[in-house]
Amino acid sequence: MFEQVKALVFDVFGTVVDWREGVAREAAPVLAELDRRDIDPRAFADAWRKRYQPAMEECRSGRRAWTRLDVLHRENLDGVLRDHGIDPALLGAAKLDALNKAWHRLDPWPEAVAGLTRLKRRFIIAPLSNGNIALMTNMAKRAGIPWDAILGAEVVQAYKPQPEAYLRTAEVLGIAPAELCLVAAHNNDLAAARQCGLQTAFVTRAAEHGAAQTTDLVASEAWDVVAEDFQDLAHRLGV
Amino acid sequence: MFEQVKALVFDVFGTVVDWREGVAREAAPVLAELDRRDIDPRAFADAWRKRYQPAMEECRSGRRAWTRLDVLHRENLDGVLRDHGIDPALLGAAKLDALNKAWHRLDPWPEAVAGLTRLKRRFIIAPLSNGNIALMTNMAKRAGIPWDAILGAEVVQAYKPQPEAYLRTAEVLGIAPAELCLVAAHNNDLAAARQCGLQTAFVTRAAEHGAAQTTDLVASEAWDVVAEDFQDLAHRLGV
Repeated sequence: MFEQVKALVFDVFGTVVDWREGVAREAAPVLAELDRRDIDPRAFADAWRKRYQPAMEECRSGRRAWTRLDVLHRENLDGVLRDHGIDPALLGAAKLDALNKAWHRLDPWPEAVAGLTRLKRRFIIAPLSNGNIALMTNMAKRAGIPWDAILGAEVVQAYKPQPEAYLRTAEVLGIAPAELCLVAAHNNDLAAARQCGLQTAFVTRAAEHGAAQTTDLVASEAWDVVAEDFQDLAHRLGV
Repeated sequence: MFEQVKALVFDVFGTVVDWREGVAREAAPVLAELDRRDIDPRAFADAWRKRYQPAMEECRSGRRAWTRLDVLHRENLDGVLRDHGIDPALLGAAKLDALNKAWHRLDPWPEAVAGLTRLKRRFIIAPLSNGNIALMTNMAKRAGIPWDAILGAEVVQAYKPQPEAYLRTAEVLGIAPAELCLVAAHNNDLAAARQCGLQTAFVTRAAEHGAAQTTDLVASEAWDVVAEDFQDLAHRLGV
C-alpha cells in the first residue's frame, strides 16, 4: 500500500518540533523583565496554545477571511498577556513581535532532523502545518530541517482539519490523495486526512504537553503506519 | 545595501535550468516515434516556449482565472503539435502528459547547484518562477537543487511580471521588498522587481536560446549586482 506513496507531509507543532519548551524558553526572560516570575513559562505557553484552535475556527467557519498564523498568534499573545493581568502596551510592538516569533524558533525533537534526512531519500517531504510560510521557512532554516517544499495552510488557504487543507496539498503536488501520506502525532489530524483518502502515519510524541500528557499517547485507529519516532518511521518504510 | 537582504529568489527557466536543451532531449524520441525526424527538437522546444507568455497573458489580463503552468504547458503542447501538422490524439493522453513533464526534468546550468549551495549558507533561497509548485518541487528533487522553500506564481496566484508576484512573495516571507533580491538572467524580470522595491541581481546565461542568442547578453540597467553565474554571485556577495 505504501508503494504508491510519493510524498510525506508532516504536521509540525508537536510532531516535528517541541512548541511547549520552545515557547516557554522565549517567554521566560520576557516574564522576568515584567517582574512576573510568578507565571510558569510552560503554563504561559499552554495558555497561548489554547487560543490556537479557537482563532483558526473563526477562519474555518467563514466568519473571518483566511488569516495567516503569525497574525493569529500575535492577537492571541495580547489575549494571553491580558489574561495574566499584563497590558501588552507595557512591552511595546517590537518586543511583542519578537516574542511572537518564538514560534519561528522552535527546536525539533531530538531524532527528527536525522529521521527526515533519511525519509527525504525516498520521498518528497514537506510540512502540512497550520503555520504560515515565513514561520515554517524560518524554523527550518534555523533548525536545519531539510524540507523539499514549504506547504501547508497558507499555500492552500485552509486550516486543518478542513478537507481542503489535505486535498489541495495533494493537488499542488500533482498527485492523488492516496499517493500522499500525512505523518502526525495527533489522531484527529490523521482521521481527517484518512477521510480525504490520504495514507496515514502516527508517531508518538508523549512529551508534547509535558510529563502529565494524557492525549495521543497511542494510535486510536489502525493507521497505515504506527512508529515511535521519525527514525523508526524511516526504518518501517524501509528507507 | 545588500546587508539588509534576507532572501534571494530566483527566476528558474533560463536562469537556474537550461529549458531548451532539456525539452529538446525529451521531445526528440517522441518526434522520432512519430516519424517526424524532420523537426529539429530545439526548434520544437522554442516553438513550445513561444506560447508561454501569451498563455500567461490570458491570466494576467483577467480574461482567464489564474491557471497553473502545468495546465498551460499541456494546452500549448497540443498547439505546437498541431502547428507541426501532428494530431495530439496520435500520442494519447499518457504520452502527452509524460512529454509535458519534460519541464519537471530540466537540468541546472553546470555551476548552479554548487552556487546555490553556497548562497544558502547566508540567505533563504527559493524559486520565484512562473512554474507551479509540483513542477518546481519535482525539478529540485531530481536535480538536487537545495531550495529552502518553493515559492512562485502558484503560491501568490500571480504571474510575473505582475507586481503582485514580487510583492506577495516578500509578504509571505514576512520581509520588506527591499529585504528581498531577485536573481534573474532576464532584464525585464529584474526591471519589474526593481519597480516593486526589490534588490536585483543579474546573471548572464548566454546560451539560454542557443548559440545565436541576441537578448539578455548584458545588463540593461545598473542592477544592484551583476555576476557571470551563481558561483560568481556567491563570490560577489562574500559568501
